[in-house]
Amino acid sequence: MSRIDGRNPGQMRPVVISGGVNPYAEGSAICAFGQTKVLCTASVEQGAPRFLEGAGQGWITAEYAMLPRATHTRTGRDHAQAGRAKEISRLVGRALRAAADLAALDGYTIRIDCDVLVADGGTRTAAVSGGWVALALALRGLGLQPPRQVMALSAGRVDGRLLVDLCYAEDSSAELDLNMVLAADGQLIEIQGTGERGVFSPEELMELIAISRQAAGDIVAAQLAAVNGPAR
Amino acid sequence: MSRIDGRNPGQMRPVVISGGVNPYAEGSAICAFGQTKVLCTASVEQGAPRFLEGAGQGWITAEYAMLPRATHTRTGRDHAQAGRAKEISRLVGRALRAAADLAALDGYTIRIDCDVLVADGGTRTAAVSGGWVALALALRGLGLQPPRQVMALSAGRVDGRLLVDLCYAEDSSAELDLNMVLAADGQLIEIQGTGERGVFSPEELMELIAISRQAAGDIVAAQLAAVNGPAR
Amino acid sequence: MSRIDGRNPGQMRPVVISGGVNPYAEGSAICAFGQTKVLCTASVEQGAPRFLEGAGQGWITAEYAMLPRATHTRTGRDHAQAGRAKEISRLVGRALRAAADLAALDGYTIRIDCDVLVADGGTRTAAVSGGWVALALALRGLGLQPPRQVMALSAGRVDGRLLVDLCYAEDSSAELDLNMVLAADGQLIEIQGTGERGVFSPEELMELIAISRQAAGDIVAAQLAAVNGPAR
Amino acid sequence: MSRIDGRNPGQMRPVVISGGVNPYAEGSAICAFGQTKVLCTASVEQGAPRFLEGAGQGWITAEYAMLPRATHTRTGRDHAQAGRAKEISRLVGRALRAAADLAALDGYTIRIDCDVLVADGGTRTAAVSGGWVALALALRGLGLQPPRQVMALSAGRVDGRLLVDLCYAEDSSAELDLNMVLAADGQLIEIQGTGERGVFSPEELMELIAISRQAAGDIVAAQLAAVNGPAR
Amino acid sequence: MSRIDGRNPGQMRPVVISGGVNPYAEGSAICAFGQTKVLCTASVEQGAPRFLEGAGQGWITAEYAMLPRATHTRTGRDHAQAGRAKEISRLVGRALRAAADLAALDGYTIRIDCDVLVADGGTRTAAVSGGWVALALALRGLGLQPPRQVMALSAGRVDGRLLVDLCYAEDSSAELDLNMVLAADGQLIEIQGTGERGVFSPEELMELIAISRQAAGDIVAAQLAAVNGPAR
Amino acid sequence: MSRIDGRNPGQMRPVVISGGVNPYAEGSAICAFGQTKVLCTASVEQGAPRFLEGAGQGWITAEYAMLPRATHTRTGRDHAQAGRAKEISRLVGRALRAAADLAALDGYTIRIDCDVLVADGGTRTAAVSGGWVALALALRGLGLQPPRQVMALSAGRVDGRLLVDLCYAEDSSAELDLNMVLAADGQLIEIQGTGERGVFSPEELMELIAISRQAAGDIVAAQLAAVNGPAR
Repeated sequence: MSRIDGRNPGQMRPVVISGGVNPYAEGSAICAFGQTKVLCTASVEQGAPRFLEGAGQGWITAEYAMLPRATHTRTGRDHAQAGRAKEISRLVGRALRAAADLAALDGYTIRIDCDVLVADGGTRTAAVSGGWVALALALRGLGLQPPRQVMALSAGRVDGRLLVDLCYAEDSSAELDLNMVLAADGQLIEIQGTGERGVFSPEELMELIAISRQAAGDIVAAQLAAVNGPAR
Repeated sequence: MSRIDGRNPGQMRPVVISGGVNPYAEGSAICAFGQTKVLCTASVEQGAPRFLEGAGQGWITAEYAMLPRATHTRTGRDHAQAGRAKEISRLVGRALRAAADLAALDGYTIRIDCDVLVADGGTRTAAVSGGWVALALALRGLGLQPPRQVMALSAGRVDGRLLVDLCYAEDSSAELDLNMVLAADGQLIEIQGTGERGVFSPEELMELIAISRQAAGDIVAAQLAAVNGPAR
Repeated sequence: MSRIDGRNPGQMRPVVISGGVNPYAEGSAICAFGQTKVLCTASVEQGAPRFLEGAGQGWITAEYAMLPRATHTRTGRDHAQAGRAKEISRLVGRALRAAADLAALDGYTIRIDCDVLVADGGTRTAAVSGGWVALALALRGLGLQPPRQVMALSAGRVDGRLLVDLCYAEDSSAELDLNMVLAADGQLIEIQGTGERGVFSPEELMELIAISRQAAGDIVAAQLAAVNGPAR
Repeated sequence: MSRIDGRNPGQMRPVVISGGVNPYAEGSAICAFGQTKVLCTASVEQGAPRFLEGAGQGWITAEYAMLPRATHTRTGRDHAQAGRAKEISRLVGRALRAAADLAALDGYTIRIDCDVLVADGGTRTAAVSGGWVALALALRGLGLQPPRQVMALSAGRVDGRLLVDLCYAEDSSAELDLNMVLAADGQLIEIQGTGERGVFSPEELMELIAISRQAAGDIVAAQLAAVNGPAR
Repeated sequence: MSRIDGRNPGQMRPVVISGGVNPYAEGSAICAFGQTKVLCTASVEQGAPRFLEGAGQGWITAEYAMLPRATHTRTGRDHAQAGRAKEISRLVGRALRAAADLAALDGYTIRIDCDVLVADGGTRTAAVSGGWVALALALRGLGLQPPRQVMALSAGRVDGRLLVDLCYAEDSSAELDLNMVLAADGQLIEIQGTGERGVFSPEELMELIAISRQAAGDIVAAQLAAVNGPAR
Repeated sequence: MSRIDGRNPGQMRPVVISGGVNPYAEGSAICAFGQTKVLCTASVEQGAPRFLEGAGQGWITAEYAMLPRATHTRTGRDHAQAGRAKEISRLVGRALRAAADLAALDGYTIRIDCDVLVADGGTRTAAVSGGWVALALALRGLGLQPPRQVMALSAGRVDGRLLVDLCYAEDSSAELDLNMVLAADGQLIEIQGTGERGVFSPEELMELIAISRQAAGDIVAAQLAAVNGPAR
């Protein structure tokens, strides 16, 4: 039995990442997972934040936000969903800091802005995956080593079946919702799993991680194409 | 003597408007004036705002905002530029209300969101021009008459020369900065002129209006193409 | 056919400006256009804002606000009308910066506060006109040259007739609403015109500017009387 | 030894209250204690607040604020002094609720706005005293009985001497600062005393209350003159 | 006729103060007046606030807040009661500054946080009384002299009877509500009295002060026990 | 090699949960994991939130906050840590909704407030564990079935060793930080793991889950003792 959009359980939606889409940003990308589309920019600023003064390292921070009509019905700009957005901003920042050599960034702060243009599920994972491309282009512009390749994808249990890269329709009826940040070699950087309707077992968790590692190959390839394609 | 980007004084930058770019919004468009790029969506909601209860008419309102890295250097999401954004939001709302038959909209509120992806001067005029396309597509979806065609463009005096559609480099050294909302027949709907560095005469004002009416033809054509092209 | 309050189309309401009304402010004035009454103070502070550091010039900024019961019905202090107030604050600031020699102000910031005590139309133009008096008195106190004389007034089309200095009753039924900042010699510093109900032609715009330049004489005279009268 | 402005210890500054100063408000007054000047308006609104639904009574509430340049140096509009202003707003509201027959007000909320135009000490007491005039005029307009007459004044110990109605210079060096709300017959409605620099005895408190009751006569007279003079 | 909880008119509820309850704070206490329970911490920070720069003294400031369910029904965390909390914060700060030698504190700011765990009337007085213990422990840790002993308690008129230390049930039907800050020798530091339902006489005020001075002995003893008991 | 406080890798700190600590709340508990101490209250309110109207179910929501001096150095009340607190509030709410039969709660909203009195690591897990006790007591008061027993604990990798229930000193040097919400039968309800310094493998994840399920027994026992002990 195939999925709502005809995919196999372990199959990503089409992954398309375009680098260098903003003429001003030091790094930028639009990352699409099917209809989901996130615009990511990396802004390089002189100086590290105050809490790092004298620590001999730079900083990477992220902000995630949705345009008001990224969703099926319009969401107001203020406050609405503010808690969720903060939480995802923190996730993206952690993931990209884990990718970079912060000591080499000493004296710089890189701000990653992830603005969701269209939200059809998996926006936080597209934000991490596209944000990595923006970061990689910015580091190249600074003459620094490329960051460790990281990406993110979602998985979950829907009607008892284990699936990767849930679209909105699947996500809204999922019994278990899992988001992972992975390194290119399949190691875990972050994992967040929630039993939205009931519990789950460690074995299900293992199985979802396994099929996600497989599916991540599509993202790895799209990221490399974007970074090695024509940057600004 | 040609302009910084080779244009004649009365020449628009390339105007490209794509309609139907958002799969959820009732109307949408990306409007580009050269590098400047604004994403506009129209969201149709049931019910008019409270101050119109019983007035027998609907409402159109607009919100204008910049993505943090739409500009040469990043601008924080909060507060920054909040006064300017409010002012432009009000301008866009007035312009599009002037275009529509609010009585025919009775029972509806249409929210126009204009989010600046790239800002190279003239963002408010691109917001009005693209917002009109989003509005026109939304009205068509409601089975209503198309709105009166309106668009906006900027003009100004730079180094003593009268120019239309200033890019950022021109705008930042302009002595006189003028924004106009025009109907397709050249009548005025709104005009805002500021002597940024010194004064200006009524005669200069007339001349700027005259060359702007000429240049507006490019916007008229691009709007019609977007509305009559493949909407969602 | 005379106007609602018996005036001719090109006639200002009585203009009364009293200077030196606040014992602490470096400059102050109450500016009345008919019933409309705005209290303006100029506060001189040491130091220029951050974005001007090293620029060799000072700064003038303005804040416009309404007392809660300046209007027919009470308006809450918070948020209400915040967008409109910001927009007018920016207008007043631009107008007064255009009047002053900012280089001579190096090392100072002057804050102009315009608080509307009674609002019967034209409050932003009374704020500019009274703000100029407060500024002129403050500059005199600093031993600087007087600023270029600027003032503001409104005009509009009501029931097809072109009028200056609209009172609230006229303003709320105006088809075209125009606000101008003028220099004493009639040159334009700022113009904002909105077709509230329909469009307007460049010729109407010219005619309104012409009758406004005439009417501005009353404001010029009242400003000079206030500045040359007994300051604090 | 006379006071800084030549007064005797138990002598008020000149008390001048003008009623009916705002053309829109249901009641209004400007109350001056010497240089201190507070504009008070009473706005009558239909309906009582939610927490009084079904209680068979109306409500009176107050808001106190300072214009930015009411003080020797300018104070920003936001947040600054917000705690102090809230505290005084609550005091004024309590004092005026104590004066009125809330049951007779059933179905109404009266909002008293007290905006300080010039602050030379005693602004909260001028706000209560002027607010009462605005309230009395508003009640008369509703055809209700006049409120119990209440007023407020300050007192304190300065350099060991007990004084009434402290001006700013006295207040800022006071060792004991006392504010009272009194009924016309001298009974107490509210008392707030603070040993700003050291302690005070119950006996000193009694003495200050006694001289304040004497001095209150000037306020009683000015209030009656304002209420019985030409209202709007 | 005894009180609702069996006390005599001049009798405090049981006063229990535990010092050193927080392992991190430089001083801390839980102060209970009957069911009312307030957690107080003193945080010592380097540096005085900006307005004291160069003044040769330190500063003490306080913040008072209620946990959402300190009250019979839950109160939201935001804004709700914000005015009241600010007012009490200011009261606690003033009382503790009056207790300390600010010159000896030069170079330090001490922040007293008073968080109400359970509110059964008299929370502000328990905050002052417990805050003093936290302050005293913090000063001892700095090797400074102990502060002048201060405490606070409430009193009032309920059904015509004069009572001390009102519990919530008494407080909510009080005709006169009085809060006092006292020194250990019975001198007054602050007094706040409000006729919630009608007026009161100077003689009643004197009588309430007299019985409160008596009752304060219980607080004096509990404070000393807490300070001299096992601090952290 | 034992841990910083002498524990074995799989050993919880002493778990002490006291139920019924607040006289007003429908359910309450203080949950201590070693020095960490969180006060939890459950407030039962009539009516479900708007988004559930007509859905035939009730709602449970949570708010998590820290007292300013819960931490080693004081944290300001506003904004500071707001993103983190929102994130944890959402976690606690999800965990407790997963425990309850929301259909049986139809017509009610239960608000769980978790206020951290002392923070020595693991505050979010103590909040879930204590919040469950407060919830269980509130449901009992409503005459409803007890909720499914859920609890939370942390685990992590520190210096290469896998440990449960990290204290602050361990947490701040952890390479991998894992928080779990578990049912009493060991099934997973939520899992959040972050490689703070580097990556981790699925096998390490499994091992941490396994030792955490063992350690959870201490929490299970303390929760049952609190629920079955003397409630308010």
